[in-house]
Amino acid sequence: MTTLTVELGERSYPIYIGDKLLGQDDLLKQHIPGNSALIVSNETVAPLYLDKVQSMLSGLKTESVILPDGEQYKNLEVLNKIYDSLLRNRFDRNSTIIALGGGVVGDMAGFAAASYQRGVHLIQIPTTLLSQVDSSVGGKTGVNHALGKNMIGAFYQPKAVIADTDTLDTLPDRELSAGLAEVIKYGLISNPEFFDWLEINMQALLSRDRAALSHAIEVSCQSKADIVAADERESGKRALLNLGHTFGHAIENGMGYGEWLHGEAVGAGMCMAAVMSNQMGWMSDEHMQRTFKLIEQAKLPCKAPASMSADKFLELMSVDKKVLDGVLRLVLMKGIGKSVVTDDYTLDDLKKAIQHSIAARDL
Amino acid sequence: MTTLTVELGERSYPIYIGDKLLGQDDLLKQHIPGNSALIVSNETVAPLYLDKVQSMLSGLKTESVILPDGEQYKNLEVLNKIYDSLLRNRFDRNSTIIALGGGVVGDMAGFAAASYQRGVHLIQIPTTLLSQVDSSVGGKTGVNHALGKNMIGAFYQPKAVIADTDTLDTLPDRELSAGLAEVIKYGLISNPEFFDWLEINMQALLSRDRAALSHAIEVSCQSKADIVAADERESGKRALLNLGHTFGHAIENGMGYGEWLHGEAVGAGMCMAAVMSNQMGWMSDEHMQRTFKLIEQAKLPCKAPASMSADKFLELMSVDKKVLDGVLRLVLMKGIGKSVVTDDYTLDDLKKAIQHSIAARDL
Repeated sequence: MTTLTVELGERSYPIYIGDKLLGQDDLLKQHIPGNSALIVSNETVAPLYLDKVQSMLSGLKTESVILPDGEQYKNLEVLNKIYDSLLRNRFDRNSTIIALGGGVVGDMAGFAAASYQRGVHLIQIPTTLLSQVDSSVGGKTGVNHALGKNMIGAFYQPKAVIADTDTLDTLPDRELSAGLAEVIKYGLISNPEFFDWLEINMQALLSRDRAALSHAIEVSCQSKADIVAADERESGKRALLNLGHTFGHAIENGMGYGEWLHGEAVGAGMCMAAVMSNQMGWMSDEHMQRTFKLIEQAKLPCKAPASMSADKFLELMSVDKKVLDGVLRLVLMKGIGKSVVTDDYTLDDLKKAIQHSIAARDL
Repeated sequence: MTTLTVELGERSYPIYIGDKLLGQDDLLKQHIPGNSALIVSNETVAPLYLDKVQSMLSGLKTESVILPDGEQYKNLEVLNKIYDSLLRNRFDRNSTIIALGGGVVGDMAGFAAASYQRGVHLIQIPTTLLSQVDSSVGGKTGVNHALGKNMIGAFYQPKAVIADTDTLDTLPDRELSAGLAEVIKYGLISNPEFFDWLEINMQALLSRDRAALSHAIEVSCQSKADIVAADERESGKRALLNLGHTFGHAIENGMGYGEWLHGEAVGAGMCMAAVMSNQMGWMSDEHMQRTFKLIEQAKLPCKAPASMSADKFLELMSVDKKVLDGVLRLVLMKGIGKSVVTDDYTLDDLKKAIQHSIAARDL
């Protein structure tokens, strides 16, 4: 087991990464201050791991709530099911919510913990690659609104993150690839050596080589922990983590939540960011092509959906959280491992990149 | 104009108290960092003051959303109207939400500000006595759930509170009295001299003597600011502010939100706390009678509703936020101005006090 720490003063917390973690009662219990816990999971994950987590909570009052599986259920209405369960079972202010599942479960359980009785304790047990390397760490929680993704939420840090790599054995191939999108992202943001390593080891990752996966998760979590410690509430550097996400959110929203997986949309979004960076003369052809190739090797889409127009993209991107006083800040690349947050582009640059990415799809 | 400060380090903020404040553009604008503001108000307050506040925002992108008036609308569904407006009008992360109204508007607009895009700026312009002396200060925001009051929310501090005493001219008598419940509360918690002053000046307050009202608002806000500065997230001392509220929340919930005003329920709740404190030998007959008398002078109910059984009270009180690890902490009094947060009572003490308060009603 490897233990990393997200350094946030008195709100610092550990990330445990390794196999067979779900069997270890103390690992979980030491982070539960009160005497009651609500496990939030979904229809897919609960049959696989709910019993195991429940058995780690002996002596505590424990309940569970099982949500439908999918990004399309990440909304206020489904969130209310968590509040209902908390209140019906009389969970008090010293209770702990345990998120057992992927990014959607983590985001919703996290926002429930942030807002129930103005805040109860939270533990993340991510069971997908995407949530292990990204969404379970850093305290972003929330739900979608019909008019935009993650528009309602809070920054709310967990007491601990327990990433058991054994849970990846049951992950569908498509979701493994979706998780790799966020892994590739860390290489593109600031870690060219890791990008090189990914180029060599992508096959091992896809075939679920345990050592390769553990290494990828550790490097990713460490990158994220460092960025979050430096800028918890995204007033600066943290925005780098949105590489590919502004394009990606537009795809998810425009196609209807659940059609494209979040990681798939981020994959295509990173290709679009590479196209735009290249067209603006910031990223070399070689680096753009290597970016395309690695994303495609990870079995991710690298092109915008043909059914979305450039106008639709622009409309949806303009409600993204990266808009500040009317200016949309984008994450672009000055090369692999050299991402920047910028508004130093013209609307024409943006339009051309979108049109090129859609056109590429139609070829 | 008097300016008080809530001392919370870099999140400190001013409370402005005085007349003619709504005319002063700079007072408001200096606390708006971006270039857009959404005013949240309700059907009753908007016709009176919305124009005035809008005219203070010249040069900014300004929109408004008008909610139905009443505690029964303080729920997730109505909250969603605020999110809808923010998203339809493309308000970004640097926007400001201005709460213009009473406690319900302040709580809902405050929670919308806490959760929209994980947090935008907030300014409170309270227009009722209750919100000026209590709910607009201290950062408690949230909505009710069918199973409990204020069960969903956040601690989220405003950038400024602007309490214009002119707005009290349009306040219905019943709401003036409801506000006086929270004013009396500060005397009962820790300020016996202020309680004495209230006994002498209650008539002046009811007849809306401007000097008396201003004094009562200043003392109340200072008391609240001191308590919030010492314990922002209610891990200790701040719980004193819940005097009368655990009983009161049960009344509001049991009778149906909107039947009793919040302040009316708190008035009766403080009488119930006095009865229990007296029966336990903590509060003298004289102090209990003075408490009853002042609450009745303020034209507030001092008895539990006859239609609620003791069992109903106990059931509703057990989901209150004051429950910690299964123990319900109550605020009781060792005398006027000597309130304590305690679990040093038996279920029988609590039952007897409830039964006595209901019985008194039936006499």
